Amino acid sequence: MGVDRPASRYAAAGVDRGRAAEAVARVAELAATTWLPPLAAGIGPFAAVWRLPPDLPRGAVLVSSTDSVGTKTKLAVALHRHRGIGEDIVNHCVNDVLTTGAEPLFFLDYFATGRIDPEVLAEVAAGMAAACLRAGCSLVGGETAEMPGVYGIGDYDLAGFLVGMAVEDQLLGPARVRPGDVLVGLPSSGLHTNGYTLVRQLVAELEIDLAQPGPGGQGSLGEELLTPHRPYLAEVRQIRELGGLHALAHITGGGIQENLARVLPEGTVAEVRVEGWTVPPLFREIQRLGHLAEDEMWRTFNMGVGMICVMEAQSAARAVSELGCFPVGEVTAGTGRDRVVLA
Amino acid sequence: MGVDRPASRYAAAGVDRGRAAEAVARVAELAATTWLPPLAAGIGPFAAVWRLPPDLPRGAVLVSSTDSVGTKTKLAVALHRHRGIGEDIVNHCVNDVLTTGAEPLFFLDYFATGRIDPEVLAEVAAGMAAACLRAGCSLVGGETAEMPGVYGIGDYDLAGFLVGMAVEDQLLGPARVRPGDVLVGLPSSGLHTNGYTLVRQLVAELEIDLAQPGPGGQGSLGEELLTPHRPYLAEVRQIRELGGLHALAHITGGGIQENLARVLPEGTVAEVRVEGWTVPPLFREIQRLGHLAEDEMWRTFNMGVGMICVMEAQSAARAVSELGCFPVGEVTAGTGRDRVVLA
Repeated sequence: MGVDRPASRYAAAGVDRGRAAEAVARVAELAATTWLPPLAAGIGPFAAVWRLPPDLPRGAVLVSSTDSVGTKTKLAVALHRHRGIGEDIVNHCVNDVLTTGAEPLFFLDYFATGRIDPEVLAEVAAGMAAACLRAGCSLVGGETAEMPGVYGIGDYDLAGFLVGMAVEDQLLGPARVRPGDVLVGLPSSGLHTNGYTLVRQLVAELEIDLAQPGPGGQGSLGEELLTPHRPYLAEVRQIRELGGLHALAHITGGGIQENLARVLPEGTVAEVRVEGWTVPPLFREIQRLGHLAEDEMWRTFNMGVGMICVMEAQSAARAVSELGCFPVGEVTAGTGRDRVVLA
Repeated sequence: MGVDRPASRYAAAGVDRGRAAEAVARVAELAATTWLPPLAAGIGPFAAVWRLPPDLPRGAVLVSSTDSVGTKTKLAVALHRHRGIGEDIVNHCVNDVLTTGAEPLFFLDYFATGRIDPEVLAEVAAGMAAACLRAGCSLVGGETAEMPGVYGIGDYDLAGFLVGMAVEDQLLGPARVRPGDVLVGLPSSGLHTNGYTLVRQLVAELEIDLAQPGPGGQGSLGEELLTPHRPYLAEVRQIRELGGLHALAHITGGGIQENLARVLPEGTVAEVRVEGWTVPPLFREIQRLGHLAEDEMWRTFNMGVGMICVMEAQSAARAVSELGCFPVGEVTAGTGRDRVVLA
C-alpha cells in the first residue's frame, strides 16, 4: 500500500459527518505523534493492529483497564481548559495498569459530546498525545461520538482503555501482601479525577469564584482544581528497583480506605497514620468552603496521596529516604470490619 | 490467595457509592459467566490480567477497537428494553476487530449515566455477557460512572473496547484488495447501531407510534428498531475457509459508501449493484415515514448489509451458493472521486 503511517482506527459516529470527520482527522494527526514501531503500518481501517514482540518473555500477560475522567469535564467546560482532561484520562489508566507492575503498550479513547467542538476535541487530543508520549505508549485509536439529546451541546464525556504487558510471576497485587509490610505514599498533584461532583455542587451552591487565587499559590482556584492527574510510571520503576514491592493501590474514588482495601488479602488490615504527610491546602480549602466532615473528605478525595506502595520494611525505608516517598502506615494481621483504619 | 475466580476490574465511579457498588457487584457476577482460563485468577484489583498463550504463533498481533452504541440508548430508555444494547456494543466491537481476521479475546465496557438504575445496568450487563459468551470472549472489566449533570437521570451511554488476536501475515485489509475482486454481503439484522439520531428525530417530529406493528412482522416498530447488532464471527469463519478472502468492511455509520471505501487501496473503486439484495422493509418504512431521499438513506443506514466481504471471484461464487451471501458488486481499477459507486 506504500503508506508508512499506520492507518489506525479513528472514527466518528455522528450526524454532521463532514465537520466531524475534519475534527477527527486532527485527532488522528495528534495521535500519530505517539505511534511506536509495534503499531503495524498500512492495515486496520476498522481496528488498530499491534505487533507482539518476537522475544516475548515466558509468562507474558496483557493487563487492561478502562476509566473515565468523571465530571471533571464539567469544570473544564466552565473554565474553557481541556488539554489537562486529555492528560487525566491517559494518566488514570496508566496508573491503574501500573498497579500490577505492567508497562503500558497502547491506549484508545472514547470521546462523546452533544456537538463536536473541533477546538475542544483538539485540545483534549493534544493532552492525550502528550501523556501517551510521556508514558511511552501509543494512542492507537478511538471513537468520537456526536450524540445530541444524550449530552448537552458543550458537554462531553471522555473514557479511555489501556493495554499493558507484564510477566505473570512478577505481578504485583494482594497475593504478595503480608503483615509487617510498610505503606509509603507518592504525592498526588491535586484532586486527580475524583470528587468533582461534590466540588461542583459546592461551587454552584456557594457561588464560589473559581477565578480567586488558589490555596496552593499555583494560579486560580479553578486552575488548581483542574491540575492533571499525575502519572507514577517513572516513580514506580525506581521503587521497583529497590526490590520488595508487593502491591500498589491507586487512590481514586473512595479514597485511601476503599482503594487500599483492594490490595489487602484476607486476614490483614492496614493502619494509616495521617500525620505521615501534610494534606495539601487545596483539600483543606474545599473542606473549609463546604464545611465538610473529616470523614467525608477522606472517603471522597485522595487527600494528597495518589499512589500507596505496599513494601517490605527495608525497601520502604529506602523509598522514603532516597526517593521522596512519605510514610503512610503499615499492614498488620487482623480481621476487623474496617480493613483500613486511619489514625 | 485461595480464590478461584478472577478478581477482575469492575469499578464504580460515583457519588452514592454504596448503591453503586451493589449494582456493580451484579454486573461483575454476570461478567464472571464469561471468564475463560486465560484470565488470570486472584490478581488485578485495578486492572484485568490476561495470559498470552505459551504457544503464541509467530507474527502474532493484538487487534483492538473501541465503539459506542450511539443514541440507540435513547430508544432503549423510551421502550424500557436494555438487554439488546449490551449485545449491540459487544457485537459492534467483535465485527470491527473481525475485519482484520482477528479472533476476539477480551472485552471491557464503559457505562455512564446520570444515576445508576440497577435494573437497567443488570439488563445491559446480561446482554454484554451473552454476546461475549457467543463470541468466545471474556468480559474482563469495566467502569460504571454516575455523572449527574452530564447525563440526564434515565439516560446512559455505553462504550466498549475489545482486544483480539491475529497473525500479521494473515491479516485481512486493503493491502490485499485488487481489481477483479468480487463483493458479497452478509445480511444485517436491522439498523445495528447507526442512524438512531435521525430515527429519533423522525419519531419525535412526526409523533410516530412505536407500539404499532413493525414492517418486518417481527413485533412492534419499536422492537424492530431495537433489534441487536448482529455479530458475524461464525459466518466469517466459514467464509475464510473458502479461501480468497481479502478484506471485510463493517457497514456502520456512513453506510456502504463510506465503510467500503475504507478497504479500497488507491487506484481501485467499487461498483455496488443495489439490486443484488432486497432492502429490508424496516429501512423502506423509515424512508416513507420521513420522506427521506434515497441518497440520504444509503449514507445513513446499512440498508440490509451488515458486512461486505471482498473476495476472489471463485470464492465469492461459493460464498453466494453455499453460504447464503448475496452479490453486492465488484472492485475495478479506477481513480474516481467517488470511491464507491451505487448502481
